[in-house]
Amino acid sequence: MVYSGITFTGSPSGEITNSIFTRDSLDAHEVLVKITHSGLCGTDLHVVNSERALGHEGIGIVSDVGVSVSRVCVGDRIGWGFIHSTCGRCKFCITGRDQYCTDMRDYFNSNQDQGSLGEIAILKEDWLFKIPEGLSSEHAAPLMCAGATVFTPLLEHCKPTDRVGIVGVGGLGHLAIQLASRMGCDVVVFSGSCSKRKEAMAMGASEFHATAGTNDFSQLNMSAPVDRLIVTTASLPDWEQYFKVLAANATIIPITAAFGLKMEFPFMQFLMKGYHVVGSIIAGRAVHEAMLEFCARNKVFPIIEKFPLTQEGVADAVRKLQEGKMRYRGVLLHDAQ
Amino acid sequence: MVYSGITFTGSPSGEITNSIFTRDSLDAHEVLVKITHSGLCGTDLHVVNSERALGHEGIGIVSDVGVSVSRVCVGDRIGWGFIHSTCGRCKFCITGRDQYCTDMRDYFNSNQDQGSLGEIAILKEDWLFKIPEGLSSEHAAPLMCAGATVFTPLLEHCKPTDRVGIVGVGGLGHLAIQLASRMGCDVVVFSGSCSKRKEAMAMGASEFHATAGTNDFSQLNMSAPVDRLIVTTASLPDWEQYFKVLAANATIIPITAAFGLKMEFPFMQFLMKGYHVVGSIIAGRAVHEAMLEFCARNKVFPIIEKFPLTQEGVADAVRKLQEGKMRYRGVLLHDAQ
Repeated sequence: MVYSGITFTGSPSGEITNSIFTRDSLDAHEVLVKITHSGLCGTDLHVVNSERALGHEGIGIVSDVGVSVSRVCVGDRIGWGFIHSTCGRCKFCITGRDQYCTDMRDYFNSNQDQGSLGEIAILKEDWLFKIPEGLSSEHAAPLMCAGATVFTPLLEHCKPTDRVGIVGVGGLGHLAIQLASRMGCDVVVFSGSCSKRKEAMAMGASEFHATAGTNDFSQLNMSAPVDRLIVTTASLPDWEQYFKVLAANATIIPITAAFGLKMEFPFMQFLMKGYHVVGSIIAGRAVHEAMLEFCARNKVFPIIEKFPLTQEGVADAVRKLQEGKMRYRGVLLHDAQ
Repeated sequence: MVYSGITFTGSPSGEITNSIFTRDSLDAHEVLVKITHSGLCGTDLHVVNSERALGHEGIGIVSDVGVSVSRVCVGDRIGWGFIHSTCGRCKFCITGRDQYCTDMRDYFNSNQDQGSLGEIAILKEDWLFKIPEGLSSEHAAPLMCAGATVFTPLLEHCKPTDRVGIVGVGGLGHLAIQLASRMGCDVVVFSGSCSKRKEAMAMGASEFHATAGTNDFSQLNMSAPVDRLIVTTASLPDWEQYFKVLAANATIIPITAAFGLKMEFPFMQFLMKGYHVVGSIIAGRAVHEAMLEFCARNKVFPIIEKFPLTQEGVADAVRKLQEGKMRYRGVLLHDAQ
């Protein structure tokens, strides 16, 4: 049997093009997925000038399975994200931190010839996730990377009694507001302008601060400092200003992948206030599964713009994301209305 | 009754001078301490050009108590450190993080007219610590700031199964090696030169790496990466090099107070490896007490150089510390041999 399907790729010029992904068999633990939906993530923009197949927020239907596959069946609705495989045995894999596996294969370093922006994908069963009934496929797609990325630090570092600051109200930020709010946290949003105030409050924020034009954050009229600060913007903010709105012992969690940046902050204040700065990527599998269940049960749904999963649709979505106009998360689907 | 004693102070020129500290009564919760020993800390060097009385690692005997004092008695051997008082009621005080009390009074912002480098001190009972029998006063003195500073992050962030890197083998570093070793950790020391290798191994290190002249830390011949990195040097190291010896999910803990510095590290690697950077100062009272008990029981003793607690002795000790020649911690005492 030959497995074959179109997959959309970047190119050195940044133009979206396509190629045919072909395989003539499934390995024992591999699964053939017929893709129905794919999210588009900011991280895709980092590889749009390469020839790798694009997309790492996939949803689809299991269409065939290798001889040893035991955890999914033909017909299951499943999703996958940035990580494609891990060793399953190192100390990170066996302590719920499998995203730090030293032998981790991910979107950047494996499966260059297939992505979720395509017709089919062949993936190892270990990093596939069944989608709970309460989640539509178009809502599940952005959760596969964005949702996992936001949920991990919230679950690990934020208690329901914390005041949690969210910097940026975009693809990640609008999920962070909803998730932190459903976890019972007191959510404080920092955004450049006022344009998203109403939406942020509707998502569950209790305070909203527009920061553009404010040279001194101690003037922001906060009702109290924040205990946690989740930074979702693609560039790193002026830490000296944000230090002014943090409680002692605050934890700062920047979560957006950004290459070539230095993280720089005033040392003495960091020390004296006992701040923590935490790096966090995506999610281990246990947290990823819990995130999907939590979103379904608490009706945490991404706000999406839909595009057809065609070459033109991908190009349109990429352009809109590059221009910073996606509000809030792009989802591409076959047979989009 | 008049309480009066000599106290040694800095001066704008940096020369050590003295003044007379005088008070004519004790407040209800105050305690008069006849000072017997004082450590000298790197943080003292930050104020040696001011006129504040010097010293914040004091050991002495309780000589008189205010009418409401209930926790110490005349004759008790007690110590005190950097923090002089806290509110006792804010959320930090009542959760074991009293060093971050928003109303904390410390060496920098209170009691400018008295320090532990003197004859007497009048202090609130709440931040005095009884010295366990197994600790001599000359060993207890450096524990009041240095010991507390090192013990807090070890207790909070390091497990006995962790490989703990210690950067720098000075006043803080030589305590960190001993403490981490007695906690069961696998201790890896990074020092500029080889000169302290033998001593560091005797203190409990299992590996020692001389870093001077090494441009690429991946060449350091480590047996395995470290899970925690406690940085005790007065300047911040080249993080890019130290990132090469860290395991994923490693926690970096710089603990030396240093003004005017920026902490700067490569962001993407920090994010992808899930590193944590933790600010930590001194200790809350519960941890401070536990530290003294732990040191007495496990025979963790600072290695000290002794000086007479006189104007000349203080000047000598300050000079030696400024020149980087103190090995490892200076202790000044009345009637030094």
